[in-house]
Amino acid sequence: MARVIVDVMLKPEILDAQGQAIARALPRLGFSGVSSVRQGKRFEVEIEGPADEAALDEVRKMAETLLANTVIEDFTVTVADE
Amino acid sequence: MARVIVDVMLKPEILDAQGQAIARALPRLGFSGVSSVRQGKRFEVEIEGPADEAALDEVRKMAETLLANTVIEDFTVTVADE
Repeated sequence: MARVIVDVMLKPEILDAQGQAIARALPRLGFSGVSSVRQGKRFEVEIEGPADEAALDEVRKMAETLLANTVIEDFTVTVADE
Repeated sequence: MARVIVDVMLKPEILDAQGQAIARALPRLGFSGVSSVRQGKRFEVEIEGPADEAALDEVRKMAETLLANTVIEDFTVTVADE
């Protein structure tokens, strides 16, 4: 059993309206010093075997097929440290 | 300028219907060997100063106030390695 993390974020050139809304709300809530916020998705994928290169390739294919829209989103796959 | 990452996940005892839907879709798409998927949110917060302990405390307060619903969600705050 291993846990693999897939982080999916909008590509930098795509407008992130949710992130902008958060960044604009912060001063109203008394928080200063934040220049930008971007919001994305995080997936924790528990795999049955070890997190070897073959398993990570499978997870990358899952991310491309199902978890991310690669037209507008980038993703990264990392192994969670236990 | 530093980038601080806030990861927000449903607490383990809360049913994650989105994650379950993904886990159930995977075999239909030809992926095997995944025992569970949990979906959460990832925020990339750009702060103006350095990511020192005071700045991280501010981000933790932001997470509690605005980014996470601490009744049902847990969050972690980490500094992105550049």
